[in-house]
Amino acid sequence: MRPDLSGIDPLQLNLATRLSVGDMLTRSAFQFPDRTAVADGAEEISYAGLDAAAEAFGRGLLDAGLQRQQPVAFLLGNSWRFVATFFGCAKAGLVALPVNLMLPADDVAWILGDSGARAVVADPAFVPILEQVLPDLPQVTTVVVTGEAPASVAGRPVLRWDDVAADPTPLQVVVEDRDTLHCLYTSGTTARPKGVLTSHLAVHVAALSNALQVGHRHGHEFSVAPIVLPLFHTTALDTLLLPVLLTGGTAILPGGFEPRSYLDVVESRRATHLLLLPMMWAAVLATPGLDERDLSSVRLCMYAMAPMPQERIGQIAAAFPGADVLLGSGQTECVPATVLQWPAHQDTKSGSWGPAVVTVDTRIMGPAGDLLPRGETGEIVYRGPHAMSGYWNNPAANTAAFAHGWFHSGDVGHLDEEAVVWFTDRVKDMVKTGGENVSSVEVERVLLSFPEITEAAVIGVPDDQWGEAVTAVVVAADRAADPADLAQRLTAFCREHLAGFQVPKRIEVLAGLPKTATGKIQKHELRARFRG
Amino acid sequence: MRPDLSGIDPLQLNLATRLSVGDMLTRSAFQFPDRTAVADGAEEISYAGLDAAAEAFGRGLLDAGLQRQQPVAFLLGNSWRFVATFFGCAKAGLVALPVNLMLPADDVAWILGDSGARAVVADPAFVPILEQVLPDLPQVTTVVVTGEAPASVAGRPVLRWDDVAADPTPLQVVVEDRDTLHCLYTSGTTARPKGVLTSHLAVHVAALSNALQVGHRHGHEFSVAPIVLPLFHTTALDTLLLPVLLTGGTAILPGGFEPRSYLDVVESRRATHLLLLPMMWAAVLATPGLDERDLSSVRLCMYAMAPMPQERIGQIAAAFPGADVLLGSGQTECVPATVLQWPAHQDTKSGSWGPAVVTVDTRIMGPAGDLLPRGETGEIVYRGPHAMSGYWNNPAANTAAFAHGWFHSGDVGHLDEEAVVWFTDRVKDMVKTGGENVSSVEVERVLLSFPEITEAAVIGVPDDQWGEAVTAVVVAADRAADPADLAQRLTAFCREHLAGFQVPKRIEVLAGLPKTATGKIQKHELRARFRG
Repeated sequence: MRPDLSGIDPLQLNLATRLSVGDMLTRSAFQFPDRTAVADGAEEISYAGLDAAAEAFGRGLLDAGLQRQQPVAFLLGNSWRFVATFFGCAKAGLVALPVNLMLPADDVAWILGDSGARAVVADPAFVPILEQVLPDLPQVTTVVVTGEAPASVAGRPVLRWDDVAADPTPLQVVVEDRDTLHCLYTSGTTARPKGVLTSHLAVHVAALSNALQVGHRHGHEFSVAPIVLPLFHTTALDTLLLPVLLTGGTAILPGGFEPRSYLDVVESRRATHLLLLPMMWAAVLATPGLDERDLSSVRLCMYAMAPMPQERIGQIAAAFPGADVLLGSGQTECVPATVLQWPAHQDTKSGSWGPAVVTVDTRIMGPAGDLLPRGETGEIVYRGPHAMSGYWNNPAANTAAFAHGWFHSGDVGHLDEEAVVWFTDRVKDMVKTGGENVSSVEVERVLLSFPEITEAAVIGVPDDQWGEAVTAVVVAADRAADPADLAQRLTAFCREHLAGFQVPKRIEVLAGLPKTATGKIQKHELRARFRG
Repeated sequence: MRPDLSGIDPLQLNLATRLSVGDMLTRSAFQFPDRTAVADGAEEISYAGLDAAAEAFGRGLLDAGLQRQQPVAFLLGNSWRFVATFFGCAKAGLVALPVNLMLPADDVAWILGDSGARAVVADPAFVPILEQVLPDLPQVTTVVVTGEAPASVAGRPVLRWDDVAADPTPLQVVVEDRDTLHCLYTSGTTARPKGVLTSHLAVHVAALSNALQVGHRHGHEFSVAPIVLPLFHTTALDTLLLPVLLTGGTAILPGGFEPRSYLDVVESRRATHLLLLPMMWAAVLATPGLDERDLSSVRLCMYAMAPMPQERIGQIAAAFPGADVLLGSGQTECVPATVLQWPAHQDTKSGSWGPAVVTVDTRIMGPAGDLLPRGETGEIVYRGPHAMSGYWNNPAANTAAFAHGWFHSGDVGHLDEEAVVWFTDRVKDMVKTGGENVSSVEVERVLLSFPEITEAAVIGVPDDQWGEAVTAVVVAADRAADPADLAQRLTAFCREHLAGFQVPKRIEVLAGLPKTATGKIQKHELRARFRG
């Protein structure tokens, strides 16, 4: 049964019935025009102001020649203009492509080239990177800068953000449920990052699901969330910012993380929802005078990316007496938080990842694609509307990612009797460090380009500060070389060719690497050896 | 930017990424297999049991020859088999068509014929209606009865519900986001009810939105909701049952409403969320011994369809001291609750409908399709994913319903400074009485078929018990007729030709009806005259 809608203009029908992330802001702005949506340290902007700016910026991009579903790359730090740029793309039916600001220039160049970005929006601090990469990227025709900038960059005229966002006429654009909302590049097991395409439907449903799960409310107890993790990651963007803006709360963007000023924000803003990495929580707990602060407004202390020792969880619970302490886990390919602990797990299952959220199925899959019973170990797989639409320009990766009708996480674990996920290992060869994914292969490629090395294996070693520490195990060409000296020069070499977070925290020089009969390096042996 | 998914089987991709209402139950059943999903007075069924029964019943319908997106009509009272039939249709990609059990046989026949239903699922009590209507409905090939039944009805073999739900092999069927989930017939302004088609996406998003708004939680404080309103209405089905099952709560189906036994259920089950019509709340408040009961488990007392006097709200708040008291409003065409009061409105804005929920836009539209400023009165219009897909087999009604890019509610009102909806009148000529929509035209048609009447107008008059009382104003052919006698015989005539809820509660005999210059009856004058 389908209705006959032949008498209705498709745009009008789309406007009346669609599920789009741009409308999320429109609704909050109509309901709460004068409430503060975002406070970014420099400025506060109301919902009405943010919505108008986003709508005008999206219109400005279309006026500059951008076409439906084309990608708009941004090199923007956390600020209200990041949020307005994101929503401007959403409202205009363009694809938001926030670039990881920690990547070296050649990765940025590769992402802009691979995605085919037509426009780049940057803070003034990133103009030098644009000067460096744009000469080889003729398809980038529109360059927008949020502040002071030269008149042109690499031969292209520079538009000022505020000038692009000048026309207040409302946008009227078709946005389909499964149109791509954002493209986030994530390090893969291959050498180059992959573009993960995610739809309006996925992100909107995830925002509803997350709001439900972490207790954001609409119409009472408005949430206040300081966000210090970078908004170019799905964690901060999809798990924290959007659920808060969906429900009329306030996002505080204080800039970089510094524990004392973070706590000042929590206290002065009466923050309700906190999300930090484990090492940041350690820094918060170590801040002098913590117990003299009024932290009673906080209802939830979330940590992401890696478990924390039970002792630290107890310390957080003691420091924030009105709050639950929960781990949220997910990945760019399946909009976080895919699995989330419940308050009851704070004491009993704190080492777990928790169960799936209401809109996600979680199972354990064997190598043949069979679903395994509870208790058995295999690959963690997901189903549901949070799943990515697919990788950009990579059909083989898509086929592998969705094999057997489930999204393959690349993580290994089991489910207990209460369907709680216990993570044990990673199928894919990745290190998760300080909230970043590091591809082992990418680091190994750099290590192996150093002439004095014949073999290299990069693994993640559990680490209190980083979650996992990037650890390199290498074999020297010259057996007589001094290990300490070699490691030092190798580190310096890595610093030149890798982003800071990719540089190994530790380099071990061995006489040889453990291998399988077919010559494949046995990383699980290395992991076991260097753990602890 | 769209991913290349050419290497993936469409069914596998659909299973991995879709937003479907059937999966809602699958997820809760995996997470909470042993929790009670539904207790219907006769039986309790766990999530695992309900999910298995639904899946098997859906498979049985496909095995019986039903095809993707074909309608399955049901004549079922509130019971766990209603819920399993509904989810069976959802999982199998069939259209659930629960029929209003209060309709007379000829309306049932009309609905089965108009929808083209291929299958009918009925409780034994409704077999006589099937005997009556099926002879003229050859397209109905499959008849399923939930209990004792004759071997055949109107020449068609009768299948037993439990036999249809016999094959436990899991279903693997493509269900698209915008596939039709249910078709609910609603009284229109024309003489015949219209089939409202609503998608999986609309109902799933509405369930998330509603769960968020009324405070159902996943993983702690599981909700317990007694449901006495009929599940064939969107209110009980989409606003109460589905959000509860989404979040792992328990739905109690005690059967018909009787205040003492309802309170027994609330008390013994530790119910958290209540939803009643205003007249039912009045009966609850009048129950002897109310203040000796332990009603501390209740967190929310909702009322629907019509405002309540402030005094009664205060009495409910006093009787349920841990609960908020809220009005929820919506309509079949825009999955309720579209607008919902907040707890803060309990005292300050109890006469309002409240603001739109997070996934709905509300505006006021003028006759030319222009959006009016706050404070001005016009038609209440909605936008968002809750909106119906459209009316079945009625392109003209669809074009009118979505004119100017908004769904037209047919209700008149204004928005205040806080975007709260204040309802004042109805554009469409409908009476809302005891939770039912009555089409004035339909009643007028019957009145006018009574030979002693020359003119008739049916209006709704505000009424403490019914919300609105169906009121008929008629002109007698014989000016000398005794009004009391005429009204009595007219009432008897209506009882023969209308459902009980459609029969006028009051009949006024006038010498003439107020009319416009062009001869149209001025109902607003009649409403003003008979109000109070």
